[in-house]
Amino acid sequence: MTTPKLADARSARLGAGAEFDLIRKLLEGSGVPLPDSVRVGPGDDCAVVGDGIAISCDLSVEDVHFRRDWLEPEAIGYRAAAAALSDLAAVAAEPIGLLVAVALPDDEPEELALGVGQGIAAAARDAGAALLGGDVSRSPGPLVLDIIVVGKAPNPVLRSGARPNDEVWVTGRLGCSAAIVRQLEQGERPAPEMRECFERPRPRIAEARWLAAHTEVHAMIDLSDGLAGDAGHIAAASGVGVILELDRIPVHPLATRTGRTTDGALRLALAGGEDYELCLTVPAGALASLEDSFRRQFDLPLTRVGRVTDSQGVWVQPSEGAPVTPLAFRGFDHLASRKPRSGQGS
Amino acid sequence: MTTPKLADARSARLGAGAEFDLIRKLLEGSGVPLPDSVRVGPGDDCAVVGDGIAISCDLSVEDVHFRRDWLEPEAIGYRAAAAALSDLAAVAAEPIGLLVAVALPDDEPEELALGVGQGIAAAARDAGAALLGGDVSRSPGPLVLDIIVVGKAPNPVLRSGARPNDEVWVTGRLGCSAAIVRQLEQGERPAPEMRECFERPRPRIAEARWLAAHTEVHAMIDLSDGLAGDAGHIAAASGVGVILELDRIPVHPLATRTGRTTDGALRLALAGGEDYELCLTVPAGALASLEDSFRRQFDLPLTRVGRVTDSQGVWVQPSEGAPVTPLAFRGFDHLASRKPRSGQGS
Repeated sequence: MTTPKLADARSARLGAGAEFDLIRKLLEGSGVPLPDSVRVGPGDDCAVVGDGIAISCDLSVEDVHFRRDWLEPEAIGYRAAAAALSDLAAVAAEPIGLLVAVALPDDEPEELALGVGQGIAAAARDAGAALLGGDVSRSPGPLVLDIIVVGKAPNPVLRSGARPNDEVWVTGRLGCSAAIVRQLEQGERPAPEMRECFERPRPRIAEARWLAAHTEVHAMIDLSDGLAGDAGHIAAASGVGVILELDRIPVHPLATRTGRTTDGALRLALAGGEDYELCLTVPAGALASLEDSFRRQFDLPLTRVGRVTDSQGVWVQPSEGAPVTPLAFRGFDHLASRKPRSGQGS
Repeated sequence: MTTPKLADARSARLGAGAEFDLIRKLLEGSGVPLPDSVRVGPGDDCAVVGDGIAISCDLSVEDVHFRRDWLEPEAIGYRAAAAALSDLAAVAAEPIGLLVAVALPDDEPEELALGVGQGIAAAARDAGAALLGGDVSRSPGPLVLDIIVVGKAPNPVLRSGARPNDEVWVTGRLGCSAAIVRQLEQGERPAPEMRECFERPRPRIAEARWLAAHTEVHAMIDLSDGLAGDAGHIAAASGVGVILELDRIPVHPLATRTGRTTDGALRLALAGGEDYELCLTVPAGALASLEDSFRRQFDLPLTRVGRVTDSQGVWVQPSEGAPVTPLAFRGFDHLASRKPRSGQGS
């Protein structure tokens, strides 16, 4: 098993991280310091204001995050809302509701609005989130959705709390959504029962709150960019390094089949993105005794995939005892990518 | 002076109010009742949650709300943010901050991001709002901005509180932005000093809080759709009628000049939209003694333009004592309109 070479997986026009650089540029220069009522500002999965109100937004743009020939309107809405709600999971927030901003293309605005709206409403219902408002416009181009999520997070779990010697865990199995995208790109038609991870991803809201209630979660993030990229966000925010133990990564069976080789499967699991599982760091040993109850409670694997070090960035170790090498990682970047893909927490 | 016939001013493909019907469809069917933590749900300028956190979003779509050949990137950003911040003014909220979702077209993403970001930052700074986060994507079509505003509103003023016999007042002068759009549509190049109302509209945040602090404001809305349409929103939300006294409407001098006739000027002032002034209802006599201090404090007119009745809808009265007739009003509708225009509160 060799180190996956993620860096060559995508051609970037603006260079790696252009998306994040632009966000940073947008966020610089306002000159308004964060007021006392802001507990968490830019850079985490949610902003947190007041007495613990978590807020995030998530864009879904046609032909960037989804294609209308791949997804029915309802699935487009469901996915967009689930991706946004996943940002609430990332900080262990309890959903309150969501606002929906939608720009509808001229070709079939009513049909689209209805289907997309039903999908959003279904995702909201599944997450216990009410619909709080929104804005609608026509669009002279693509269908654009911006889903704004609002939740209660009196004790938000942040990306920035990881400490050296923490263990790194993930929920679920990784790479399913990326495998479906790969199949669709190759002109295959995945069976409907396999497409559920892609069409109706489940934000891990209850799971996140259970974990935060049952143990000391130092840092958490939802997997929208792929484990390699999102572990990198935790590492950067916390000023630590993350070592991913490649033989421990819970690769989804569909990713194993679609990736063909072990490397191919790992690439889907590490860089594919849009799994909306959780990645968290906890003190060493803290989760071992809880793993079984978590599995029973949620019918979902909970897997230790690595550890936190006092270095910087993301590292990989093919198996226990093998050499640890830096991951040449280029994070998924919507600006750079020409392929329709989705998901990025605020 | 005759009643302006606003109904024929726009050709509607989906019929009047399609935008609002679609929002309603989106908001129906979630099946999740509003939780206790929601104080104000859909249908007002902001949702209000928790201990008084007001949240709204506002879309700005290229070639629907603005044209890039009419506005520099910084003005596009400033306008988009000001329109969103105006929703905070409408409920008399104190701004905390904003989140920015932006889909950048492929042709010049970095230049656009920088200019638009500077404009947003300037509007945020002018309103005392910090930048709290956001999301960035590429767009295969138009530039799309969704600005999410967050503020403190322990005592939000709503659209639904108007009572019969209230007076209806507006801040500022109306029709300037619509006059600029008219000139641009006709191929004219308005002088830079005249374009300020269009390029850097000022959300009336301090004015709204002053009014709410100094008198009993029953209902308030910001003028994004035009006074006729926004008075209609107050009337509908409050279950009352609003009579607009046409000879009292403070028409902006530029609208007077651009509209050519009295009717043309009134049409710009009543139906033009995007003035981002405030319309409020107060008990009869409540504002008369405060009008002068308001003018001195803000260097801005405050004008009584009508009254609330126990009928329904919006009515007009050409002058005192003249017959009151129903306004055949068709609200501005982004879905129906083919012209680039902006603004709609959530």
